[in-house]
Amino acid sequence: MRSKILRLVRFQHVSSTQSNQLIANKQLLYTTHELSPGSIFFLPHGTRVFNKLIQFMKNQQIKYGFQEVITPLIYKNKLWEQSGHWENYKDDMFKVVGNDLAREEVEEGHEHGHEHEYGLKPMNCPGHCIIFSKFERSYNELPVRLSDFSSLHRNEASGALSGLTRVRRFHQDDGHIFCEMNQIKDEILNTINLIRDTYKIFDIDQHIQFTLSTRPENFIGEIESWNVAEEELKKVLQETCGDNWSIKDKDGAFYGPKIDIMVTDNYSKTHQIGTIQLDFQLPSRFDLKYIDSEGNRDKKPIMIHRAVFGSLERFFAILLDNYKGNWPFWLNPRQAIIIPVNSSHIEYCEGLKKTLSGDIINNDISPITGYNFYIDIDKRGETVGNRIKEAISKGYSYILMVGDKDIETGTIAIRSRSNRKVENLTVDEIYSKFINLEKQFK
Amino acid sequence: MRSKILRLVRFQHVSSTQSNQLIANKQLLYTTHELSPGSIFFLPHGTRVFNKLIQFMKNQQIKYGFQEVITPLIYKNKLWEQSGHWENYKDDMFKVVGNDLAREEVEEGHEHGHEHEYGLKPMNCPGHCIIFSKFERSYNELPVRLSDFSSLHRNEASGALSGLTRVRRFHQDDGHIFCEMNQIKDEILNTINLIRDTYKIFDIDQHIQFTLSTRPENFIGEIESWNVAEEELKKVLQETCGDNWSIKDKDGAFYGPKIDIMVTDNYSKTHQIGTIQLDFQLPSRFDLKYIDSEGNRDKKPIMIHRAVFGSLERFFAILLDNYKGNWPFWLNPRQAIIIPVNSSHIEYCEGLKKTLSGDIINNDISPITGYNFYIDIDKRGETVGNRIKEAISKGYSYILMVGDKDIETGTIAIRSRSNRKVENLTVDEIYSKFINLEKQFK
Repeated sequence: MRSKILRLVRFQHVSSTQSNQLIANKQLLYTTHELSPGSIFFLPHGTRVFNKLIQFMKNQQIKYGFQEVITPLIYKNKLWEQSGHWENYKDDMFKVVGNDLAREEVEEGHEHGHEHEYGLKPMNCPGHCIIFSKFERSYNELPVRLSDFSSLHRNEASGALSGLTRVRRFHQDDGHIFCEMNQIKDEILNTINLIRDTYKIFDIDQHIQFTLSTRPENFIGEIESWNVAEEELKKVLQETCGDNWSIKDKDGAFYGPKIDIMVTDNYSKTHQIGTIQLDFQLPSRFDLKYIDSEGNRDKKPIMIHRAVFGSLERFFAILLDNYKGNWPFWLNPRQAIIIPVNSSHIEYCEGLKKTLSGDIINNDISPITGYNFYIDIDKRGETVGNRIKEAISKGYSYILMVGDKDIETGTIAIRSRSNRKVENLTVDEIYSKFINLEKQFK
Repeated sequence: MRSKILRLVRFQHVSSTQSNQLIANKQLLYTTHELSPGSIFFLPHGTRVFNKLIQFMKNQQIKYGFQEVITPLIYKNKLWEQSGHWENYKDDMFKVVGNDLAREEVEEGHEHGHEHEYGLKPMNCPGHCIIFSKFERSYNELPVRLSDFSSLHRNEASGALSGLTRVRRFHQDDGHIFCEMNQIKDEILNTINLIRDTYKIFDIDQHIQFTLSTRPENFIGEIESWNVAEEELKKVLQETCGDNWSIKDKDGAFYGPKIDIMVTDNYSKTHQIGTIQLDFQLPSRFDLKYIDSEGNRDKKPIMIHRAVFGSLERFFAILLDNYKGNWPFWLNPRQAIIIPVNSSHIEYCEGLKKTLSGDIINNDISPITGYNFYIDIDKRGETVGNRIKEAISKGYSYILMVGDKDIETGTIAIRSRSNRKVENLTVDEIYSKFINLEKQFK
């Protein structure tokens, strides 16, 4: 990795944002428009990657006991006052004007009422507090772990926006854990395990650092809770990361200590991705309670904010930087392309495409579950050599070439993007190969 | 069906909204809050159903050649002026205030700039027109079919809101097809097939009507195009629905004729669900073009707006009304519950739960693809009879009872929600049964 960084330092005048934009343009991944600055348009191929990331995380989170919820995007300012966002975050929020008209007024025939101010949510936490507080909670259902992939908006000045990393609209693999004090350690341990497992899958585990930010001057809450919580976090970090973490003294949020996970990109720029934040404050502001094992009815849960990818948009940028457009097969929005040697092979190739695309295509009603792959055909009259060259440039993982001999023998000539070596495999063997690649996240 | 309607007419004083709310409360599906009127909070079990509906439709749409995109939620008013929404729809839109500051101003250290008005999108079409217009398009890539599951907002008066059917925030299985005039028929045919196949899966195909709304007085565009389009639509309806459709004369939108699909609920109330709308106007307003087969560079595509579920929230309400909480297994957020006869069987039941939950749980890294089911355990000290009764009341599809004999023989006593008959099946047989139910959408 070090040599890679050194090598790239020469090209520092090309920024990571510019380089990402070049790949995104070539692969048609995303675009932007002046009428919605800072909101990404994910094009079909970018959406495939985005959705695969979300599906990956949803499946991991189920294993870790998270329950997904879908929460509103706009809330009356009263909510933001209650959460403290109004005081601390007002200028970074989009204001929204709604039409509030009581039921009686509607029945009397009025159409337009009092305008009421709402805020477009910058974070999911207050919505999750509302869900927690809607029901009587008991110690034996804790930890309650809610996850949410909602759109979030932050009102950044339009001139400060940049690529996928400084945006106005973004998505997080957001999760909030409501638990008892003695459950913190296990929850943090699980979260760090999930983080490490995930980053390994995306080949960025070698470039990350964990930092613990401790009690700042302007902390709230009881100093004993802070001490207990910081000790727990240190113990977990030591257990999971050995000595590979550092302390940012007095750099915690005023509401609790936190662990941040930073990644260094190929341009030596550092980005925050994952985060684990303890929160002693929001449960008070929303008067959250549960009944403990001794029957006390007003025990206050601890809240943990955590994200593994962090902003999906930023994580997408890190993956662009990491893979340089050479997506691994399982994540590739262009998994394979079929090249008919000449037009007489097109019909056979159409059938082959259908088979390899998988269960979705080959049933009257597409099933919910099944192995499905993104397969294209390049039917153009270009030479096979030119079409292979273009397929490699577009980033297809595999290239299948079909001529008379292949149709006769029932095997297909297949090569990977990165290796000229051609194998001859049956259709079943290719489909199995693709399934195995997906299973191994290769 | 008729007898069911007659039977229910007696209870007309309980509205469909109230009845749905009762089921939703019992099954913890969704809730609302005064700080975000008209925006639904989907609770974990409601989110499971919601996500399954979306997954179902995504898979069908891939087969029909749709490409999913993710588009912004807020756009400057200039976009809404261009699309015509500002003129016709302004009062129904939420206004949003953003912070527009040029890059130079940011670099000079300014933080707050000119406030600029945005609109929170009520529809996806303008965003899809932007994507179409971003690239040079050729006849041989038409039809371009874009799909989108974004949040949409309409600024309904808060006093007019009701349950899941009159909301401010909703989601559509929205799709836009950009095609040539001679492709309309096939596209409509495919859409009607998808609609009929889908409604059959959800057991509402017996309660739907198709209507064709024709050219209104205030139409725009050329009368010949209208005539051709209306004839095409009639032909397709005749082919696919026989005589089972009707005409709403002069009831089309001013921009094109449309087919609406209405469903009648158990309270004899009619709801619009699916829609297919031809649009001759938006392609002009956004100056959309493609190069035709003769090299003409400014051919204008036809645009088709279509949705199968329509509003996911409203479709959710129709399913509540249709199933009365007795979700079919594949869609059920509570697929099976395991009841250990006494506490000595709990450990075995935990293993059983893990196995039946599927691939997500049983791998270090949860795979992207696999059969996964929602399985719970009821470990309480209640009698088996009481726990079965409660499981039925909560709507579990299957109830598994585990005592000494089951553990000894390696078979589990399993019964369905609706039938007392108990079968004794091995764990593998149960898992296979669940897979088959999902495959058959049962």
